[in-house]
Amino acid sequence: MKTIKSSSRLSRVPASPIRKLVPYAIEAEKKGARIFYFNIGDPDIETPKIMIDVLRNWKMNPIPYGRSHGDPILLKSLVSYYFKLGASFIKEENVLITTGGSEAISMAMFSVAEPGEEMIVFEPFYTNYNSYAAVNGIKLVPVRTYGKTGFHLPNRVEIEKKISKKTKAILICNPNNPTGTAYTNEEIEMLVDISVKNNLFFISDEVYREFVYDGKKHNSILKFMKKYPDKMILLDSLSKRYSLCGARLGMLVSLNKEIMDGVLRIAQGRLSAGFIDQKVAENLTEIPESYFKKNHQEYQRRRDTLYEGLKKIPGVFLEKPEGAFYAIIKLPIKDSENFCKWLLTDFRYKNETAFFAPAEGFYATPGLGKNEIRIAYILKVDYIKKAVEILRRALVKYKG
Amino acid sequence: MKTIKSSSRLSRVPASPIRKLVPYAIEAEKKGARIFYFNIGDPDIETPKIMIDVLRNWKMNPIPYGRSHGDPILLKSLVSYYFKLGASFIKEENVLITTGGSEAISMAMFSVAEPGEEMIVFEPFYTNYNSYAAVNGIKLVPVRTYGKTGFHLPNRVEIEKKISKKTKAILICNPNNPTGTAYTNEEIEMLVDISVKNNLFFISDEVYREFVYDGKKHNSILKFMKKYPDKMILLDSLSKRYSLCGARLGMLVSLNKEIMDGVLRIAQGRLSAGFIDQKVAENLTEIPESYFKKNHQEYQRRRDTLYEGLKKIPGVFLEKPEGAFYAIIKLPIKDSENFCKWLLTDFRYKNETAFFAPAEGFYATPGLGKNEIRIAYILKVDYIKKAVEILRRALVKYKG
Repeated sequence: MKTIKSSSRLSRVPASPIRKLVPYAIEAEKKGARIFYFNIGDPDIETPKIMIDVLRNWKMNPIPYGRSHGDPILLKSLVSYYFKLGASFIKEENVLITTGGSEAISMAMFSVAEPGEEMIVFEPFYTNYNSYAAVNGIKLVPVRTYGKTGFHLPNRVEIEKKISKKTKAILICNPNNPTGTAYTNEEIEMLVDISVKNNLFFISDEVYREFVYDGKKHNSILKFMKKYPDKMILLDSLSKRYSLCGARLGMLVSLNKEIMDGVLRIAQGRLSAGFIDQKVAENLTEIPESYFKKNHQEYQRRRDTLYEGLKKIPGVFLEKPEGAFYAIIKLPIKDSENFCKWLLTDFRYKNETAFFAPAEGFYATPGLGKNEIRIAYILKVDYIKKAVEILRRALVKYKG
Repeated sequence: MKTIKSSSRLSRVPASPIRKLVPYAIEAEKKGARIFYFNIGDPDIETPKIMIDVLRNWKMNPIPYGRSHGDPILLKSLVSYYFKLGASFIKEENVLITTGGSEAISMAMFSVAEPGEEMIVFEPFYTNYNSYAAVNGIKLVPVRTYGKTGFHLPNRVEIEKKISKKTKAILICNPNNPTGTAYTNEEIEMLVDISVKNNLFFISDEVYREFVYDGKKHNSILKFMKKYPDKMILLDSLSKRYSLCGARLGMLVSLNKEIMDGVLRIAQGRLSAGFIDQKVAENLTEIPESYFKKNHQEYQRRRDTLYEGLKKIPGVFLEKPEGAFYAIIKLPIKDSENFCKWLLTDFRYKNETAFFAPAEGFYATPGLGKNEIRIAYILKVDYIKKAVEILRRALVKYKG
């Protein structure tokens, strides 16, 4: 009997660098070690009580499909959320509720480019852009950014020289996962201008919008959306803002009718996003400002603890991250995947260890990121201190 | 300023024939009419109390990501479910939990064929196969089946003549949505044999497995999976079995390691299926047989009511559906989309009307299905009677 091969495109979907070491963590836990999970942006911050209460007061039975476009009350709440951000022109028809920000990313890639076409990204970038690019047959063309400049954008020439006839879009994540960079108004204006001049879509992934520190302001593409209605696509998510990662709720937002009509058709094909999840989030407008303020302060404290701690370890380099809850950290090692694996399989300090994400998977250029890790500072300050201590001791002990 | 076009592949994603008339239904409701929704397989059967209780007793906070592969307890429950079906060889690594059966369909298409390659389907077929084929760049090659033979398969020659060098898989839905056909053991054996001889994947969508009537038995590909481990892919869902449509829980099941490794990488890219949804379903093994038995009887009663009622309407044709909860019904009209729309916009009987799905979108061959509708008999017997009465009166009144 002949053997049968899966599609070659399946083999091109990369394993997630955030997730592929998970089996080693599970194994370590089985052996009784305590693992601190800094590998994934899955915060320990509480989900608002008003959302949890939706579950506790659940009355509906059966649990039906939702509308493909999204739960009507949640859509209304989101329009009101964008209104408060100053985007009074966003109507319900400009918002599609997606199954996590993940689905919004995939839909956007599918919608703006044909297989084989290109999208400009800034390296290092959110690793799952690689997965979705593979799934959608798109080539990500990386523009490199550097730790020593806080991973801010290079000048216009460096970006424009990557634009080819196949380029269809520029994609940024702002504030950035994995670097924590919060782009300046000048940087966003430059990207808007480059997209307009080169007739490209400008896709901005702003799922960490609320997390910009030190009193700095977030520079959203919402500001430019009305002026360039056809070119701007906002990707968004409730996962981080409300500590709702497992609820899989994201949004694709655009004034481009062709795009919105098309993604709704894709959404119809998959019937609906999770009904329960959407009900949970429905009353998001009732969450007090104090919730965000408290979390913001907490993340800033974590970032400060991480930054101050890491700066003291010989051979470790990072600039202070400005937003989101990630940092890319250069280590005095050769291969961070081996190092992160070794932390899980071999290293213990008081029977504890930490799970970090090797940074290579956040780059498209082969070889880059091999001496870097990404830390998600999503656990409390005490655990951040442990992470720093574990890293300090591990680097002394590691032969790699 | 130049205008910017979305990708041409976006324009090829079809609108869902089940969902595209929804705005007319919403409009009719706004005007005070009562609509009976027979357009979509969203049952009124109760979700098991043990599942709803998971919500009501919810304690976890925050709501974290799940594992990409699926919730470990749910996976264990599913392995035990397949064990009871006789598939003792299915282990956790052979099951991926997906965001609804929808995601499983898309992953399977992506995994077995390159863009431009082909998959054999039996027409009429589940309409969203069209959406996923468009999203994955696959060509569905339809083999026609006919109402007069209860939409059973044609002979082997008719099927094999559609196989080309580009054909990678055969895809069936058993029992079938939209026809209600439950394939015989001989039919499944023939398809297995055709796939093996032609080195094709055999993908069986069995989300309606529990719904085969008149004492007939469901013929699953599970029976052949161990003999042909690399070729068989089972698509499954909890939506219908537990009346959990809105919970978006499906499964892709295969013994093909290359496929399972690949779909897990795709799953890592989208992080996880809904965490709350998976917790809701976790204890499915504790649901008593009586739950399924009762629902099975109820659906059979509905089917009988529908069938007996429709048979009496002049010019209406259907064979008695054998499974699932759908029927394709031939009507004495020219354009069922216009008719279904007219039912929502113009027709009222005691200020009530019914929402049916035009059947054209369940065919790939242009022009077919134009005088057919699909009815999902997912509402109680009294409403099925209303649907029949509405249809009877509407056909008298309709000029189309």
